[in-house]
Amino acid sequence: MAKKSAQVVPVRDALRVEPGDFEIARLDPAATPVGPKSKSEAAADLAQVAAELDALQEALYAEGTGGGRRRVLLVLQGMDTSGKGGVIRHVAGLVNPQGLHIASFKKPTRAELRHDFLWRVRRQVPAPGLIGVFDRSHYEDVLVARVDGLVPAAEWRRRYGLIDDFEAELAGSGVTTVKCFLHISPDKQRERLVERLENPAKRWKYNPGDLAARAKFPQYQAAYQDALVKCSTAVAPWYAIPADRKWYRNWAVARVLLEALREVAPVFPEPSYDPVVELARLRDADPLR
Amino acid sequence: MAKKSAQVVPVRDALRVEPGDFEIARLDPAATPVGPKSKSEAAADLAQVAAELDALQEALYAEGTGGGRRRVLLVLQGMDTSGKGGVIRHVAGLVNPQGLHIASFKKPTRAELRHDFLWRVRRQVPAPGLIGVFDRSHYEDVLVARVDGLVPAAEWRRRYGLIDDFEAELAGSGVTTVKCFLHISPDKQRERLVERLENPAKRWKYNPGDLAARAKFPQYQAAYQDALVKCSTAVAPWYAIPADRKWYRNWAVARVLLEALREVAPVFPEPSYDPVVELARLRDADPLR
Repeated sequence: MAKKSAQVVPVRDALRVEPGDFEIARLDPAATPVGPKSKSEAAADLAQVAAELDALQEALYAEGTGGGRRRVLLVLQGMDTSGKGGVIRHVAGLVNPQGLHIASFKKPTRAELRHDFLWRVRRQVPAPGLIGVFDRSHYEDVLVARVDGLVPAAEWRRRYGLIDDFEAELAGSGVTTVKCFLHISPDKQRERLVERLENPAKRWKYNPGDLAARAKFPQYQAAYQDALVKCSTAVAPWYAIPADRKWYRNWAVARVLLEALREVAPVFPEPSYDPVVELARLRDADPLR
Repeated sequence: MAKKSAQVVPVRDALRVEPGDFEIARLDPAATPVGPKSKSEAAADLAQVAAELDALQEALYAEGTGGGRRRVLLVLQGMDTSGKGGVIRHVAGLVNPQGLHIASFKKPTRAELRHDFLWRVRRQVPAPGLIGVFDRSHYEDVLVARVDGLVPAAEWRRRYGLIDDFEAELAGSGVTTVKCFLHISPDKQRERLVERLENPAKRWKYNPGDLAARAKFPQYQAAYQDALVKCSTAVAPWYAIPADRKWYRNWAVARVLLEALREVAPVFPEPSYDPVVELARLRDADPLR
């Protein structure tokens, strides 16, 4: 029964950010509020998730080739070391890479800064049939932009509404947006930063600026609180993913994504030709037979 | 011993197209000239390949973030149903999708046709640190362009030299190009086309034009013969992959790619900061401790 529970309880319902009732301080980053209670249980369930994700992704891709407009966008946000890269590797890595569109949003370039903050994001919206993955996103514009005072307060304050409008517009054009906040504790972040510094094969993932951001952990939590509450809408909800345990984080994001794809329920397109006619051509008029 | 043989014999040497000695008609698409002799043996070896590919790809990616220019480009060519998509799913799918750049070259658009044939290809050359995968490529411009007479003979004839120059230029800018020709038999193609037509979940992969191309199978083989012989160079060799057996095809491409990555031998970059200093900062000056 334990193994099946993960499939029975809707994971999205358990992890969705409800604006009226969400307090980031009450979220335990090490919790396992729904689903598996151990790494091995999670691995077993993930294998099932993988098979279903793969099949749904193929149908979504096929639907796109047949003129369908639908696509899925997985937005990943979280503090350094919260596991955005790990989710891409272990969750996005479960499906055919040809059906993925992965975009990383780093510090905006000078050219990007000359545009509206959503400009560079719009350019990376996945095409129909694809699963897009955003490694950071337009939410940086109400997170680091706010914490580091990169724009006046009046500016970042109006962005919540602009983001809601943008995501509603995406929904209207066939995009199912799934936003996952990977929530880690300061202690776990410390542990992972130490690991990056001690392991020569991980040092490239670290940069000294990470400590400056870490020093502002409380300010970031306040900024996340607002972003999650103000922008968890019916068409583009936020999910708060406890991320201190990597196995739980990966499992939870995979399940949330799977449930979203099930709801999309992509369908293989009707062929634009007659299969019976084509089979007859292959049978009766094949010059190579 | 059988399982180890795949690792001992260099797969690239066994499958490389040697211009002076290559005849496509002598290639058996169902052969297993090197490596595993069964699906289960191939699966066991592929698991080892996967682990090593994954590690090398991460180092390549890291090297790129540190200013390295090197990257790998896997070019896939072959008749319809030869398995280009299957290789992307099962071989490219072995590594972190964040380190991949996949480009599909379909029939050129009107805008693309207004440029030189290499224009759209140059735009898809993988960035440093990435593994690029071309699903079809600039070789279409000496294959379908020749078979269907889309350009005058004088035009496609000069393209072999232009392609060699282009690929030498890529090599000079840090690109290791690995070109795999997936070789299937007319009978196997027929079987796979029938399968696509009979299975409603595969019909989207078929289009009636596939039969027109199939009718020109011999002309395509002649065009492949020339492309492989004229463009298998020291810096960008062609590999002829027997592709009637999917398990062999995937295994062989994975091994060829692995050997190329081993030769690249990417290295994790030296950090631009002092890890000892950073560890001390985390230990002694962490405001969150």
